[in-house]
Formats: sequence, structure tokens, C-alpha cells
Amino acid sequence: MTVTAPKGFSAAGVTAGLKKSGRPDLSLVVNTGPKKAAAAVFTSNRAQANPVIWSKQAISDGVVEAVVLNSGGANCFTGAQGFQTAHATAEAVAEHLGVSAGDVLVCSTGLIGEQLDREKVLAGVAAASEALSSDGGHNAAVAIMTTDTVPKTVLIERDGWSIGGMAKGAGMLAPGLATMLVVITTDVDLDSSALDAALREATRVSFDRLDSDGCMSTNDQVTLMASAASGVTPAIDEFTAALTEACSDLARQLQADAEGASHDIAIEVVGAASEDDAVEVGRAVARNNLFKAAVFGNDPNWGRVLAAIGTTSADFDPYQVDVSMNGVRVCHAGEPDQPRDLVDLTQRSVHVLIDLRNGDAEATVLTNDLTHDYVHENSAYSS
Amino acid sequence: MTVTAPKGFSAAGVTAGLKKSGRPDLSLVVNTGPKKAAAAVFTSNRAQANPVIWSKQAISDGVVEAVVLNSGGANCFTGAQGFQTAHATAEAVAEHLGVSAGDVLVCSTGLIGEQLDREKVLAGVAAASEALSSDGGHNAAVAIMTTDTVPKTVLIERDGWSIGGMAKGAGMLAPGLATMLVVITTDVDLDSSALDAALREATRVSFDRLDSDGCMSTNDQVTLMASAASGVTPAIDEFTAALTEACSDLARQLQADAEGASHDIAIEVVGAASEDDAVEVGRAVARNNLFKAAVFGNDPNWGRVLAAIGTTSADFDPYQVDVSMNGVRVCHAGEPDQPRDLVDLTQRSVHVLIDLRNGDAEATVLTNDLTHDYVHENSAYSS
Repeated sequence: MTVTAPKGFSAAGVTAGLKKSGRPDLSLVVNTGPKKAAAAVFTSNRAQANPVIWSKQAISDGVVEAVVLNSGGANCFTGAQGFQTAHATAEAVAEHLGVSAGDVLVCSTGLIGEQLDREKVLAGVAAASEALSSDGGHNAAVAIMTTDTVPKTVLIERDGWSIGGMAKGAGMLAPGLATMLVVITTDVDLDSSALDAALREATRVSFDRLDSDGCMSTNDQVTLMASAASGVTPAIDEFTAALTEACSDLARQLQADAEGASHDIAIEVVGAASEDDAVEVGRAVARNNLFKAAVFGNDPNWGRVLAAIGTTSADFDPYQVDVSMNGVRVCHAGEPDQPRDLVDLTQRSVHVLIDLRNGDAEATVLTNDLTHDYVHENSAYSS
Repeated sequence: MTVTAPKGFSAAGVTAGLKKSGRPDLSLVVNTGPKKAAAAVFTSNRAQANPVIWSKQAISDGVVEAVVLNSGGANCFTGAQGFQTAHATAEAVAEHLGVSAGDVLVCSTGLIGEQLDREKVLAGVAAASEALSSDGGHNAAVAIMTTDTVPKTVLIERDGWSIGGMAKGAGMLAPGLATMLVVITTDVDLDSSALDAALREATRVSFDRLDSDGCMSTNDQVTLMASAASGVTPAIDEFTAALTEACSDLARQLQADAEGASHDIAIEVVGAASEDDAVEVGRAVARNNLFKAAVFGNDPNWGRVLAAIGTTSADFDPYQVDVSMNGVRVCHAGEPDQPRDLVDLTQRSVHVLIDLRNGDAEATVLTNDLTHDYVHENSAYSS
């Protein structure tokens, strides 16, 4: 059900022929109302794909009728021809739905620097428009997959209203292992400015703290659409909490399916002077290839954790830091503590606890290990 | 000959027993004068090993009698006991040479968070002191190797004076794949402030632009010692140029022997508004795991180059950029140009040329690809 679980949405996923594999590659999610409020956040990469450039314009009035998404090509660094393809795609959706093209968002994922086959995209839009269904959420979630091994979906139900979502990729808004595309639907009655505030808060502590491989995509986009079909206007705090739960759930699913990963690593930083410091420290560890390769080898090499956090500008003394791995404190105040042999890293889930001992702020950054399969999948990428 | 090629130096490399492998692991390089001027640069990591903390104090007066270096342990995050070991090592060298411990620098490389066996180190110092020889440079270069497959040495000869050097590791002053230790000797007669200026300029455009895997070591140190034994005082520009040549040569050797690498990648950025912009852009590409994995797979995935440079704050328009790989311009003004199939990446040497078309500044950053062997070596690290 996913994006079609909340009232007021229909969706479809079809095969437009953009992927060599012949798998489904075009999704359409439509808000059937009564209201069409929306918000979106985009990659912070300065190199932005044509669909991102288009969608940023289209979201500016806070009204979105539909989102159309394709896998099989990123439509990035494809020049004027590529932008015209994104525009034509929105126009085609608008025509089929009888709405304005300026209220249709476009998302793409795949190889950068190749033109999309516009005719195939437009034929796919026609087929998806025909296939729209109030239980088309699953098909939509499947058609946005690239290297994903499973579709990622979520449903959060509250008293009289709900939030549904689908995601592809493994990464974060900035950075991303691969392009991360997310569509979230809800039947609450909230205006676009409330949705925007809730979405920014939710993504800040979920997708923005998933850093699988430190690489920022040109195509990342998270779209939230609200139909008001439930007739309920929840308190904004309550809605934001539910939306954060939905985003965090999807972020965990992205982490669990990250390309080639064999460990899901949660880096919890506590005792920080500020939340920004905690995030900076967590991210520095998440991006350290030596640490990530050690985890792949089940090696609790805490020296690499400390070497990584030493590169940050966060406010703390590296020689006062405690580090625990899976519950074993291996470093206390910058010196060896419990023997590293006590740490068991054979499970997929790894917890690194870093106590900066310099305040009360904290944050958790999620990442993955660096594996042979990661290298293989990303050296052979051609989806 | 290496560090003992210039007049006024002796050196030795011995087996102290710090490495499980039983290979040589302790080196000593001594300036026999007549003068003892020196300069050094250190890792910019805030987490600094005990030998770095010691050496920073010892270099402050610009006088260095000797450098003692060990592999088999980083002596980092080892607390007061570790600092005492570094201090005792310098004291032992000083006693054997009849000099002040405050004029002896200490360098260590190996695993972080383990105490060095002090008795073995001191016995090694005694053995090295006995073995000192004016042709001991090769042995010294061998005894600092860790995962290095070959010793790295250089000799630059000028009219009446010379520069010799040895290096271990693969990386840079900041960051480093593994700890980078370098000792450079010269028989010129220059004071420590001139040496310091020359060394900072030379490292800025050599070691500082080698970024094999984006990871910054806690132990990096480059030491330059001048004996004045040639009696020659070259023009500072001439000396700086020769020193830069020596450092660049060693940097290329480090790159060529980087752990697990199958490609040496030179990222040349031209048309930048400033040299800082060019370095920032080059470094962003050098640290992009997706790009590095693509090169491993001989895949000219230029979209990953553009996605990487889009994350920088350098002054340019991502949609005006040209990218060439091994002589084939695959992207022109942000659009596909020559077919990527024309790019041959099967050779070890890869040249990526990025023209930002926004000025006259340029810089080249050296890196390596991300390979299965890199993951393997760094997941199984225990030297």
C-alpha cells in the first residue's frame, strides 16, 4: 500500500523500457485531493540534475498534483535537451491528469551524462496514467528500484490519519551512496508551509544522518504530499513526530540495503558541546575508509575512530574521549581500556559509542562498512 | 645511499623486535655536522601521537642532532606511559651520541592504542647507535617500512651540494593512507628558518597534494636536516626548487606503492579562480569513493567527477566545466562530449583533466583507485 495507504492518493509502476534489465522503471504518484499541499527537499549538491532543477521550480507554490519518477537514467549533465525531457515528462503527466505541468514534480535516477529516451519516458507516462490505482503503491515502490534488492516502504497510522512512504537508494539527502528518491503521502489537512517545516525537521534527523559512503548525489529528492482526505488537522508537533518516525524507518531500510554492505553501523556521539559537534564527529567516523574497512574485517580498530575525530573542528579534547564498540569500552580518556579482543563484530549491527565528555548534546549517524562487494558493485555500475 | 648521500650524515636500520614479522623496525639518522639546522612539518590531525608531541617540542629551537624512527607501533593514544616511552627513546639516543635529548626527534608508525615495548625500543636504539654508518641510508629506509612493498628514497644532486631522502607509507601530511614518515637530509649551509620556509613550500605542493584515501594519520612527520658539510649556501629559490623536486619524487613513490591500489590517478584542475579552488576541486574528486571504484573497474564514469566537484564551495559553474580522461574530452560545458567508450583506463596511470573555465589557477592532486585489495589490506591490518 505504502504511498497509497493514506486516503486521497493513487499510484502506478510500469515498465517504460529505460532499464536494460526490462524491469519496471517508471512510477507515478498522484494526489487526488481534496487538497494538494506539498513540500520537498533536494540534494545540496551544486551539480543538480535536470529533474531537480525542474522540481525546485514546480514546488515553489507549495502545490503538487503528482510526482513522476524514473529509474534507468539520472538525466543529469544532459544539457538543454535533458531539461526539455524533464519538462516534457511533466507536461505529459499534466495532460493525462488534466492539471498544470507546473504542479508535477519529476525525479530521475541512474547513470549521469546520458540522455533519457524521451519517447520511452512519454509512453511510460501514458501507461502509468492508465494504470493508476488506489492500491498501486507497491508497484510504484518497485519501479523506482535500481541497485536496491528490496522495495522500501513505510506506513505510520494515527487516530484518523496516516503517513505512507516509499524510498529507493542507499544514502542520504546529502551525501548519498546512490540517488535517494523518497515520496511520502499523508491524508492530513496541513498547508504547505507546515508541511515544509515538518519535512525539514524530519529529514534533518533521519536521512541527513545516514551517510553510507560520503558521496553526494545530484538527484536526491524527498517529496511530501498531503491530500487532506482524512479531514484531520493534527497538532504540528504530533505530525512532525510521526513524519520523523516514517523518515527514520525508511532511512534504516536504506542503510540495511546499502550496496555491498555487510555491517550496519550506528555511530552514537554523546557528551558533545552542541548537536552540530556531535553530527560532525559522527560523520567524520562514518566517512573514514580505514575504519569502515576494519569493521568489514570484524576488527575493533578504535584507533581509527580517534584518528577520524581528530580531523574535526568540534569542541572537545581528543585525549578525554571514551570509545565503546558493541558495549565494550576499548578507550577511556584517550588511553586503552578494555582489551579489543572482547569486542564481537560478527553481527551485522554495530554500535560505536563516542563520549566526548564535553557537554550534553548528542546525535547518531548511520553508516555501513567498506566491503569487497561495495567496490565490486560500484566498479561495475551500469544500471 | 639516500639520507646518507649528502655529506655530514650517518644512519642505521636494525631489528628491535617490535614487528611480529621479525623484519627491521628501527632507524636512526644522525647529522654529523658541522651544523645541525633543521625544520619539520607534522600531521594537522588534532589527535597526535606521542612522538609527534615530543618532536614538536624538540624542533622548536631549529636544532636537530638525530631522528629515531620505529615501525611496529604508532605510540598514539597510549597516555603518559606512551609519552614516557617517546621521551626515553630520545634520551637513549642522546646518551649514545653525547648530545641533548631535546635535539632528538622521534617518529613512530603502526597500530594506534597499543603500548610500545620500551625495553625493545631502547635495545634497538643501542644497536642502531653501534651500527651507524655513512652508507647506512638504505638500511634506514628499509627499517621504516610497514605495508610498503619497496623502500622509497631520493637523491637530488646539484653543483657541490645534494639532497637525500627516505619515506614510508602512502598518503600525505594530512590526510594519509597510513602514517607517512619522511626524513630529508642536505649538506647545504642554510639556517633553520630558511629550511622551514623551503620545507613548507615543498610539502605544500607535493605531499599535501597526495590524497590516497582521505584518511589523516596521527603520526605523519617530515623532517629536514642540514649539515652544512658541503660549505655551499645556495640561493633559497634554487634550494626550494630542488627540495620540491625531492618531495614530489617521494610523493610519486608513495602513490605508486599505495595499499592495494591498481591505478595512480593524477587529477589536474585548470581554469580555476584560485589555487585553493583548484586544490579543493581536485581533493573532492580524489576522495570520492564512487569515482575511485569506477576507475578500479576501468570505467570512465565522468558523472561521478562532476557529482564530486558539485560538493565543493569553489568558484565556478558546474555547467561550464570540461572533463577529459586520458586525453578524451568526455564532458564539455556540462554536457556529454566524446563517447566514454573511447577512454582507455587499462593502464596504471590515469590522467583526469578538469577545466573549470573560470580563471588561470591550477593544481594537481594525486590519488589512487578504490580496490578489493585496499579493502582487504585495511580489514586485515595488524602490522
